[in-house]
Amino acid sequence: MKTDIEIAQEAKMLPIAEVAAKLGVAEDMLEPYGRTKAKLDLNPLREMPRKAKLVLVTAINPTPAGEGKTTTSVGLADALNQLGKKVVLCLREPSLGPVFGVKGGAAGGGYAQVVPMEEINLHFTGDFHAIGAANNLLAAMLDNHIQQGNALDIDVRKITWKRAVDMNDRQLRNIICGLGGKPNGVPREDGFDITVASEIMAVLCLATSLTDLKARLARMVVAYTRDDKPVTAHDLKAEGAMAALLKDAIKPNLVQTLEHTPALIHGGPFANIAHGCNSIMATDTGMKLGDYVVTEAGFGADLGAEKFLDIKCRAAGFAPSAVVIVATVRALKHHGGVAKADLNQENLTALEAGLPNLLQHVENVTKVFGLPCVVAINAFPTDTAAELKLVEDKCKELGVNVALSEVWAKGGEGGKALAEEVVRLCEQPNQFRYCYESDASIEEKLNAIATKIYRAEGVDLTPNAKKQLKQLTELGYGNLPICMAKTQYSFSDDQTLLGAPKGFRITVRNLKVSAGAGFIVALTGDIMTMPGLPKVPSAEKIDIDENGVISGLF
Amino acid sequence: MKTDIEIAQEAKMLPIAEVAAKLGVAEDMLEPYGRTKAKLDLNPLREMPRKAKLVLVTAINPTPAGEGKTTTSVGLADALNQLGKKVVLCLREPSLGPVFGVKGGAAGGGYAQVVPMEEINLHFTGDFHAIGAANNLLAAMLDNHIQQGNALDIDVRKITWKRAVDMNDRQLRNIICGLGGKPNGVPREDGFDITVASEIMAVLCLATSLTDLKARLARMVVAYTRDDKPVTAHDLKAEGAMAALLKDAIKPNLVQTLEHTPALIHGGPFANIAHGCNSIMATDTGMKLGDYVVTEAGFGADLGAEKFLDIKCRAAGFAPSAVVIVATVRALKHHGGVAKADLNQENLTALEAGLPNLLQHVENVTKVFGLPCVVAINAFPTDTAAELKLVEDKCKELGVNVALSEVWAKGGEGGKALAEEVVRLCEQPNQFRYCYESDASIEEKLNAIATKIYRAEGVDLTPNAKKQLKQLTELGYGNLPICMAKTQYSFSDDQTLLGAPKGFRITVRNLKVSAGAGFIVALTGDIMTMPGLPKVPSAEKIDIDENGVISGLF
Repeated sequence: MKTDIEIAQEAKMLPIAEVAAKLGVAEDMLEPYGRTKAKLDLNPLREMPRKAKLVLVTAINPTPAGEGKTTTSVGLADALNQLGKKVVLCLREPSLGPVFGVKGGAAGGGYAQVVPMEEINLHFTGDFHAIGAANNLLAAMLDNHIQQGNALDIDVRKITWKRAVDMNDRQLRNIICGLGGKPNGVPREDGFDITVASEIMAVLCLATSLTDLKARLARMVVAYTRDDKPVTAHDLKAEGAMAALLKDAIKPNLVQTLEHTPALIHGGPFANIAHGCNSIMATDTGMKLGDYVVTEAGFGADLGAEKFLDIKCRAAGFAPSAVVIVATVRALKHHGGVAKADLNQENLTALEAGLPNLLQHVENVTKVFGLPCVVAINAFPTDTAAELKLVEDKCKELGVNVALSEVWAKGGEGGKALAEEVVRLCEQPNQFRYCYESDASIEEKLNAIATKIYRAEGVDLTPNAKKQLKQLTELGYGNLPICMAKTQYSFSDDQTLLGAPKGFRITVRNLKVSAGAGFIVALTGDIMTMPGLPKVPSAEKIDIDENGVISGLF
Repeated sequence: MKTDIEIAQEAKMLPIAEVAAKLGVAEDMLEPYGRTKAKLDLNPLREMPRKAKLVLVTAINPTPAGEGKTTTSVGLADALNQLGKKVVLCLREPSLGPVFGVKGGAAGGGYAQVVPMEEINLHFTGDFHAIGAANNLLAAMLDNHIQQGNALDIDVRKITWKRAVDMNDRQLRNIICGLGGKPNGVPREDGFDITVASEIMAVLCLATSLTDLKARLARMVVAYTRDDKPVTAHDLKAEGAMAALLKDAIKPNLVQTLEHTPALIHGGPFANIAHGCNSIMATDTGMKLGDYVVTEAGFGADLGAEKFLDIKCRAAGFAPSAVVIVATVRALKHHGGVAKADLNQENLTALEAGLPNLLQHVENVTKVFGLPCVVAINAFPTDTAAELKLVEDKCKELGVNVALSEVWAKGGEGGKALAEEVVRLCEQPNQFRYCYESDASIEEKLNAIATKIYRAEGVDLTPNAKKQLKQLTELGYGNLPICMAKTQYSFSDDQTLLGAPKGFRITVRNLKVSAGAGFIVALTGDIMTMPGLPKVPSAEKIDIDENGVISGLF
């Protein structure tokens, strides 16, 4: 069986101008990066109306069994393309950290991939490097301000801005910097986040123009003064230089799938402390150029879809037409209590026990958000007919169809049933609504998400979180939407509660404003913003030969 | 008077394929990065012979008055172009740190610039980001190895590999990392260098192919074991992934001057702890494609030209045809003891007192290295006829001509006299030789550089350096050339001794192997490998408007 990288390297890619031409994009709007990648100049598109149907691909709560959300998104786009639809795939850019750690690449799999796979997984067009540079420029200007006299009276114990590196490097989670005496800075506690966790990543993904980007950068809170006033990037006069560093990063990147379907791959904010979706500018561009846009959101639907709908769609004024919820029979059995080693056996009892996880996501999409929905079962050879029928029957009870997706093995051809159902759903009227209104109080918003989406009995705030809630409300941030940071493995804040747990409460331990992104992050536990490498990092297997051919990326 | 960025933004650039065509480079060898930048696929050039005359542009010891080495290089290339010569300009890439700090851009000045100036000064084609990522991947793999059990028995007090960021960030010079308990690494002292100071930058600039690059990366020493054995990147199995990260960075970048002369801008190693020249691959490419290659080396000729000739030319087998030494009347008066504020007044006495600095560089080039040489006086409006004549007369006594360079104000037209002299020199036979043979002992090599180039009375090694000398020799590194790390402001290791000091000795405090780059760094004082930002960083003035036009870069 061929590996992903072998399939990707055998691909005959079209010149990127030909891919662009499918969308009516003239060559003079392309800024080529090599022959098969290009950035789009958005100025000519500014006044164009959005016309596409927007399709969100989300999933059940992730399990070690793997769900295949990106693969399904790619295959669905290829299938829509095969049905003769003008489709644009909108995905997130991979982070270098996981590529060298455990996860490997993030450009789909099998015969449902975006290419050039190696370049998308390595530096791509440099967007993340630009974000890292802007992040670290702001950090350097902040510490330089303190070193040069601290006119803003920044409290070095209340600096919230961290440095960033696009690498899984646990050694940098907690550091003391500024050592070595007076010429070498002011000693203080500090730490690094992985670049995708930088607020600048979220800002870039939620910005609607270069001007909006600069305004959002200016608003970012980097520290508090000794009397608890927020200090912003604008106070440090940093937003102009940061925006200059991001002038190309803000432009969406055009590539193609193995079947030459146009794909805009742009942005990739962390799905816990940020909203985990590709950029508004890319999705907006897709909706102007295509008839269908297929996009995805991070983690399961409780986090990813909720934030896509409540944060990204609200910020951009997007109204989705349909939602695809990806599941596998194996993952549902895992939610029903089966260990990873035993997932290959038929087990209808476990499947029935795990199905409520899927069904709760389905109900949330249809009843809370008012959107049509289809369940995509990402097919595995071990799935039995009885198992598939059980999933289908249970979904039918909720008025939702199931489509078997075989895009990993067959490409777009394997996603036609799914694509046909998506097209049907997109023609239906829908009553899209948010889970909460943003002018509700912070506590009301937290409660709405916890009770309506997670089905918790309520929300408890720690004393610390209560104090922060008061402070953030007083500072005028109370009207921002909420970005939940919660384990992705469970509807609850306890990652061991699989399936569809009942009778639990959500504890919010920390509230932090991302004033540039425009949301309040509610942390419900320890959130890792800097991963580590495993015992044997995948970097050890990556190599390149004298002709520049890369191996060991998967 | 127009600023550099205003002049650059008014430039009408040729499509990069047209610039490439001037050198006979077909479009299918270009990997475009936008319309005016491209990387060159070197495979088709592998077997081509070098045919160009190689011209090195170097300078007197730098002063606060400024010399204009890059500007002169650009103008000389444009002037050669105007004379009908097929010329390739080979420069270094600017670092982001200085752009946001004091120095501003580094793409020439006035009417002698390379363009697109903003992009060259910001991310360009991402080479430095790739180097930073490779540097930090190795660091993460190193600390992960220790965290996962330290099978190699690395002594955490003897780790020589530092992390890198392309920013002037003094706060990161000295840190303690790995804090926070067992899941978060092993506490130890650490620090960051600016990316240009990474050994990977030197490796990239001295590599002759992707295979050679990978072999050099593998050899890099990152730490020592508890019993003092070197630990290399290869021991950590890191070179394959690092080379994969550098697969595009190794390809030279083609841009153009304001007058459309082809320019290969590639690499930019620190000129003190590394050799400070652009890449061998770019220079080699220029010598295959052009009839003249104009390139520069960092700092003054005592550091830059010496390393260019003894390290880069030796590694690549280059034999230069002529050397240009750039000086200004103002800078020479500074070497003669005049304060910066008084440099605009004619002062023949001070000029005569400062001239020995220039004359010693001239003698070094002609007598030590056996190369023909011309002095380029970068013209300022305050220069007087008497001053210019004095410089000319003194140089004549050494058999060297002086050419007035007005390229800043007039572009290539202002460099024609210089270009004509360069062409004349290139036709002369020369007896190029190195300052030392690499198979001499480390001490002999240090003595050769100190006595022949600096005119010191000798070299003293501190007890620490003596111990290191013994260790490096025992480890088999004794045959490597020497990379001197010394103040750039003086021939001596005391930056206050201007002009041509006599009667001093050089003290070597530290010897460190850069086994991948292939040299031994001899430190003669505290060498700063991470700059800081000034009171008012130039980043504060940089801005971008809604159309993406950048201002405040200079």
